[in-house]
Amino acid sequence: MNKKLKIGLFGFGCVGQGLYHVLNNSTGFKADIVKIAVIDKTKTRRVESTLITYNKWEILDNSEIDVVVELIDDADEAFLIVSEALKRGKHVVTANKKMLAQHLEELYHLQNEYNVSLLYEASACGSIPIIRTLEEYFDNEELKKVTGIFNGTTNYILTRTLAENLSYQEALSQAQLKGFAESNPVNDVEGFDPKFKAIIIALHAFGLIIKPNEVLNIGITTLHESDIKYANEKGYKIKLTPHIHRIAHNKVSVFVVPSFIKSHNHLYNVDNEFNGVIVEGDFSGEQFFQGKGAGSYPTGAAVLSDISALSHGYKYEFKKFAQNQIPKFTNDVILEVYFRYNSPEDLRHLQFEEITEKYNGNDFHYVIGKIHLEQLFEYREYILTNHLFISLLNERVELSNDGNRKTVFKKELQIF
Amino acid sequence: MNKKLKIGLFGFGCVGQGLYHVLNNSTGFKADIVKIAVIDKTKTRRVESTLITYNKWEILDNSEIDVVVELIDDADEAFLIVSEALKRGKHVVTANKKMLAQHLEELYHLQNEYNVSLLYEASACGSIPIIRTLEEYFDNEELKKVTGIFNGTTNYILTRTLAENLSYQEALSQAQLKGFAESNPVNDVEGFDPKFKAIIIALHAFGLIIKPNEVLNIGITTLHESDIKYANEKGYKIKLTPHIHRIAHNKVSVFVVPSFIKSHNHLYNVDNEFNGVIVEGDFSGEQFFQGKGAGSYPTGAAVLSDISALSHGYKYEFKKFAQNQIPKFTNDVILEVYFRYNSPEDLRHLQFEEITEKYNGNDFHYVIGKIHLEQLFEYREYILTNHLFISLLNERVELSNDGNRKTVFKKELQIF
Repeated sequence: MNKKLKIGLFGFGCVGQGLYHVLNNSTGFKADIVKIAVIDKTKTRRVESTLITYNKWEILDNSEIDVVVELIDDADEAFLIVSEALKRGKHVVTANKKMLAQHLEELYHLQNEYNVSLLYEASACGSIPIIRTLEEYFDNEELKKVTGIFNGTTNYILTRTLAENLSYQEALSQAQLKGFAESNPVNDVEGFDPKFKAIIIALHAFGLIIKPNEVLNIGITTLHESDIKYANEKGYKIKLTPHIHRIAHNKVSVFVVPSFIKSHNHLYNVDNEFNGVIVEGDFSGEQFFQGKGAGSYPTGAAVLSDISALSHGYKYEFKKFAQNQIPKFTNDVILEVYFRYNSPEDLRHLQFEEITEKYNGNDFHYVIGKIHLEQLFEYREYILTNHLFISLLNERVELSNDGNRKTVFKKELQIF
Repeated sequence: MNKKLKIGLFGFGCVGQGLYHVLNNSTGFKADIVKIAVIDKTKTRRVESTLITYNKWEILDNSEIDVVVELIDDADEAFLIVSEALKRGKHVVTANKKMLAQHLEELYHLQNEYNVSLLYEASACGSIPIIRTLEEYFDNEELKKVTGIFNGTTNYILTRTLAENLSYQEALSQAQLKGFAESNPVNDVEGFDPKFKAIIIALHAFGLIIKPNEVLNIGITTLHESDIKYANEKGYKIKLTPHIHRIAHNKVSVFVVPSFIKSHNHLYNVDNEFNGVIVEGDFSGEQFFQGKGAGSYPTGAAVLSDISALSHGYKYEFKKFAQNQIPKFTNDVILEVYFRYNSPEDLRHLQFEEITEKYNGNDFHYVIGKIHLEQLFEYREYILTNHLFISLLNERVELSNDGNRKTVFKKELQIF
């Protein structure tokens, strides 16, 4: 496929406009955007009006168009567009992490069945070429883990809270003013966005297809100044980190939680809107990637890179998925966490396997201990509505000991 | 090409044995090493003796072998092996940076002429997939620069000198004891190794084919305790850094010099034997990659990744080279440096464009100023033999002003 590609573009927001700019200013690669489908008829757009359509079928049913680039917000509509495009033999490039995370399996089968290519580098960690690297470079190496900072909005908020002693609300408002957070930020601040990305990455890193509702995400909305003070005193930074860890007996655990990050960790220096990814392989050791996780041009450049790959006939081979040694996804693991709570009742709810530290101040109470991931799952809503805060203290994820859950107090600090 | 590959391996040292291990322990990929050519008949090797040959033609003339993997030290012999293999229609994977840097143009034409694939990810920055990323991900984006730490040996030495107040000689001995430096370390410590890597990377980042003798490399052999003290006082780290910078009028400058690295630079935290690469694109901004730059398994894994790519029909397309907007290589640039010298005569030799600081102590003299890269080229030997030390202070590389070289003193500090 070395002819000049004809592109039908869905969506002309931040990333769509970024792609338009990057494509028109690329030195090497030429492709034509022949149609742009948008919804809002009242907006003025800085492109020729003949390019614009309000009817998706004008792109989907146009046989001249080889490639559909899907850059809209609505995940359901995006799935409709992407699947209809694939069924019509069109290649698709998308950045829609929610849609992908929800429909990975169907999409995998569709692109196989219709023998077309579906690429989505821009869906995870913006300008960092993580999917391609997992797919093409780590295809023959068993990985130990993939972790990182996959969401620029929360990283910006968390950086500001610690660096400037802002409250979560103040930092969120600042992020919204600067355009780093949306007016309804729930997708980011509750950790859904990095979860969708972790699910996409888990497919290319481990061959796993997991449903979003199987994966725990706890966000940063309950972060309190006492947590910030605690982290500052200990020399930690707070980051919202997805974890994709291979553990014993060929199992993989996936979850998204706030984490206390120590200064020797690569992620310690990934601040503000930047993203970072750590990949640890059995042979290559720990690799670290950092780059802009969002933004019009960086994400546009990631989309363009996929379009260019299409023009060279590139297709994900889902190599880890195709190898028949896929590990099993599990939530049956124990994590070591810091848990800031309000009342003794909170501690009675969340059953710890083991408590190694307990602190009671006038208005600040926490424990440090080991807890089963399923406990966090069960009490996720309780934690959020009661403004409790949980943060991973130790990256080691242990397989559970068959539900033997007696809480043991090892060290008790009581200060009043 | 989806059959099981038959590999002829040249060299069974550190990387060769790493590849052997990694290949035999890879879950996904299967290929057979059918013959291993080595030189030394006295060594015992932990593989079946029937695998070993001392005659290179037994591999080159074996029509059953699809892929030659070249992992020997001798660059001239390596070129002979690689070119003979390509001419016989065999694909080649090599990690020999010196051989590649010296013969990039011939090898490019050979692999084109014989329609075979020549891959060499392991030649630059070990386990960091930088060549593939430049070739496949940044293929349509103009880059501003590529820089980093491409040599683990010197990075280990420099890290130890600063962290433990060791002298250069003490740190070198420690590196040799730990196996991070060879008994004859000149290739690393004088900056040839990172220069070869920079030349390979310049082809994939900018489409440039440059000869090693056109590129300045100044190493770390003249590092003195006063330089270490100066860097420590200022809060700098010292790193040996290759620079591949696009400057005005579509020109690219390439050189390797020691640099003072400030704490906000990504490279500040790349210590010991690790490598780091910074790629800055017009659209994606600054990207940073870190990983193990050497070692048996990491490099073996990089070689395996190339072999696996071969099995999927992968071939570099040298996209930046193929695009006909290749910038021009130039040494006509001005750098801002720290220059530690011994006598006034040293300063009379190296003509500075501008001197902004001058320090004279009892036995420590330095200037900070701007100097033409060609001056450094001309006086490279003089600097080395007289134990002077030069370190880049500012990453900005400026195009020269047509040789207008009057030295201007801006600020003079004299302390006795």
